[in-house]
Amino acid sequence: MDALLGALRGIVGDGHVLTGGDLGAWERDWRGRARGKALAVVRPACTQEVADVVRATAAYVQQHPDCGIGIVPQGGNTGLVLGSTPDESGTMLVLSLRRMQAVRNVDATNLSMTVDAGCIIDTLHECTSAQGLWLPLSLAAEASCTVGGVLSTNAGGTRVLRFGTARDFCLGLEVVTATGEVWDGLRGLRKDNTGYDLRQLFIGSEGTLGIVTAATLRLYPAPKACWVAWADVPDMASALGLLERARYSLGDALTAFELMDRSALDLVRKHRPALRVPLYPSGAYAVLLEYCATDAGMRAPLEDTLAAAMQQGCATDAVLAENARQSRAFWQVREAIPEAQAQEGPSVKHDVSLPLGAMSSFLDATAAALCAAIPGVRVLHFGHLGDGNLHYNVFPPEHVDGRAFVRDEEERINDLVFAQVTAHGGAIAAEHGIGSLRARRLAQVEPPVAMAMMHAIKKALDPTNLLNPGRVLLHSVQNPCMEKRPCLP
Amino acid sequence: MDALLGALRGIVGDGHVLTGGDLGAWERDWRGRARGKALAVVRPACTQEVADVVRATAAYVQQHPDCGIGIVPQGGNTGLVLGSTPDESGTMLVLSLRRMQAVRNVDATNLSMTVDAGCIIDTLHECTSAQGLWLPLSLAAEASCTVGGVLSTNAGGTRVLRFGTARDFCLGLEVVTATGEVWDGLRGLRKDNTGYDLRQLFIGSEGTLGIVTAATLRLYPAPKACWVAWADVPDMASALGLLERARYSLGDALTAFELMDRSALDLVRKHRPALRVPLYPSGAYAVLLEYCATDAGMRAPLEDTLAAAMQQGCATDAVLAENARQSRAFWQVREAIPEAQAQEGPSVKHDVSLPLGAMSSFLDATAAALCAAIPGVRVLHFGHLGDGNLHYNVFPPEHVDGRAFVRDEEERINDLVFAQVTAHGGAIAAEHGIGSLRARRLAQVEPPVAMAMMHAIKKALDPTNLLNPGRVLLHSVQNPCMEKRPCLP
Repeated sequence: MDALLGALRGIVGDGHVLTGGDLGAWERDWRGRARGKALAVVRPACTQEVADVVRATAAYVQQHPDCGIGIVPQGGNTGLVLGSTPDESGTMLVLSLRRMQAVRNVDATNLSMTVDAGCIIDTLHECTSAQGLWLPLSLAAEASCTVGGVLSTNAGGTRVLRFGTARDFCLGLEVVTATGEVWDGLRGLRKDNTGYDLRQLFIGSEGTLGIVTAATLRLYPAPKACWVAWADVPDMASALGLLERARYSLGDALTAFELMDRSALDLVRKHRPALRVPLYPSGAYAVLLEYCATDAGMRAPLEDTLAAAMQQGCATDAVLAENARQSRAFWQVREAIPEAQAQEGPSVKHDVSLPLGAMSSFLDATAAALCAAIPGVRVLHFGHLGDGNLHYNVFPPEHVDGRAFVRDEEERINDLVFAQVTAHGGAIAAEHGIGSLRARRLAQVEPPVAMAMMHAIKKALDPTNLLNPGRVLLHSVQNPCMEKRPCLP
Repeated sequence: MDALLGALRGIVGDGHVLTGGDLGAWERDWRGRARGKALAVVRPACTQEVADVVRATAAYVQQHPDCGIGIVPQGGNTGLVLGSTPDESGTMLVLSLRRMQAVRNVDATNLSMTVDAGCIIDTLHECTSAQGLWLPLSLAAEASCTVGGVLSTNAGGTRVLRFGTARDFCLGLEVVTATGEVWDGLRGLRKDNTGYDLRQLFIGSEGTLGIVTAATLRLYPAPKACWVAWADVPDMASALGLLERARYSLGDALTAFELMDRSALDLVRKHRPALRVPLYPSGAYAVLLEYCATDAGMRAPLEDTLAAAMQQGCATDAVLAENARQSRAFWQVREAIPEAQAQEGPSVKHDVSLPLGAMSSFLDATAAALCAAIPGVRVLHFGHLGDGNLHYNVFPPEHVDGRAFVRDEEERINDLVFAQVTAHGGAIAAEHGIGSLRARRLAQVEPPVAMAMMHAIKKALDPTNLLNPGRVLLHSVQNPCMEKRPCLP
């Protein structure tokens, strides 16, 4: 392997092939579930270096078909499904795109920007808002996650209701293929039917088909004003009623509809006592609505919507943030949930989506199944109700050790939850992706005909299974090497 | 081949395998460019019959590898690029989806509907509007074109500016694969990251990777009101200025921005004298703006936008339709352009898209190149400026026979136009697709790395090149059969 590492040093420079010292920042996943061991961390500075690294590695693998070497692309390493960290084999190269941070172009006429894959989402927000433009991508990890990671996982967030997932933000891609060629698909056109949509195929494929090195993103004119409201909602049927009413009366100006159950807010109060919950739920839920308008004076439709919802019984009470600072404070409560959960201790987490009509039934059936199986278990859910996306997390009964609970019960809990998701027509992965954490599940729940097509596509674009092996697809049966690569939990 | 036709009769019934009589409706393309010859027209009634037809055909082809048989899926047969009609070999089966017209489900809660591929777009409009829902897909052929065709070609239309192309309307697909299996991808979720996005791969692949048999489409609450305005615009820079102003002041409520050059409106006046052009252009262009709002009272923003644009010089004059009837009349002028062109006689047509910033330069350079090559040539362009999409058509000089002109000059004109499109960072196919008409061009203008990936994907999902051979990809080099299949012009 020294020959390969030497070649890589020749491409990216000695200082950017890391093999010694503490590589924990690249080897450990965001949630701290697992730590792998990398053969090396390679940090290219530009697209051509990425291509050269892939080509050199592919050539080495061809000469040493049993080496088991694979390339794991990594952006901000904020993924939640073990998709961007190496496994324990010690044969994975972590290819970090973080040095590639150029904003190549901001085009106000075309309402688009072209940026390197390693750009942090927050820096793009700063860059666009300075020009009166808006990238409405909003997700919890935006201060750390990168464009490449967001597109590779088709990340979602809080404004999918109006603006769609990462897939919908992307007008073009630059990708390094498994053979180390550069595909320049950065035209950034609104309409482009020149053959198969390779862009959409790469988006969400988690670096298993190619490595995203740059993207052209869709921008919007900055809204004149955004208002945030907080509603106290008795139950799921009411939450859905409020959503429907808000959609009809606010249309596209309804940009977020976030659901929080009472347990989630209890944890925020417990672990982040300095935050003020605008209205503590008298029933099952609180809802945060965001309304962004092109006219600074148009607050009335949101007020009217909330008033009508209260009259109709969909909401028990509601408050409207008075200014931007208060809007920020409302959002902070919503955003504090993941951290408050972490402080509470380990839990078994799921990121699922469901048809809205099946939401109530799913929640009832799943809670019943879990409580029957593990008496005293505590369920917490919150998420992006406008998109049918719930983060559905299961905590141990009081006084049970969280770590032991997760170790002993995770599989059983997953079985129960995913069985209900499937029975209700939902998806076991909504916005976090598959990675290696859900690869086995994916093969179980998706129809064989879909899995066969995915494997055929993988084999077509990455026949030697060089790129992020074992992620999304458990293993490529055509590659005998794969059996040697242990799968992460 | 009799054995195959017998098997197909056994599947769909004797009356639905057409081999005799006049098959012109299926063999002739919409524009009347070419008439192919079908082995048979097969009309399945349901998804299972489609699957059985494909399986039987695949089995026959396996036993007779030199037979040259392929399957050409067909919906409303309104395509403009020879994608849905058989070639002249007499070995193509036209698989018409037109009998599959069921609306399987309309889900007002989930804002979605699931429909058979053979449903006509207009019937879906009727079905949804009766329920206060909206399918904002709006395109010229909507009275004849089908869901399957619209998705297979990723059709666009007049509201892409706000709602995107067909790809953006589709939440799920049901597809029959090249091996005759049924993939049920109809979950219809807003967020679904369970592996590679097969849905997006099939959309826009023109039936070459699988046959779309049903789809789940995204719906919207019906807008409270839509207003239409017509502006007199001196030149392209002003048109782009008006577009930018309208986008910033109207936001998502700006649902269409249609450009018509003076020549296009001259043809409408000549061939459709009963239609009243609201404002005949004093300069180069007229623009039609559509504004759809959730509040019936909000006409003021559109008025303000037009007033500001006139003050700024982006528009010389503007009128607002006073009521729905007048709005309809404005649209009729825009929609009359294709027919008026047809009445004027043959022309060399292009459907291209460009970055907005390159639009003026593209128009100047292309007109100059054409006029230098063919003195007296008449250029007409119109289209969806909001999406950078122009229909750019070239008519013969006065008193030159149109048929001879197209026959003699089409290739040269295409060379000139596409060279400018490519030089300006545009796409040679914006919303009409590739079919067989542009397959050779696609291979010329797209980078080899992209073409190689497309061929690899085709081979992975349809290794025997059974589905719509010769469309999108000129031929699959791996299939010796293909050389026997002549390509349409």
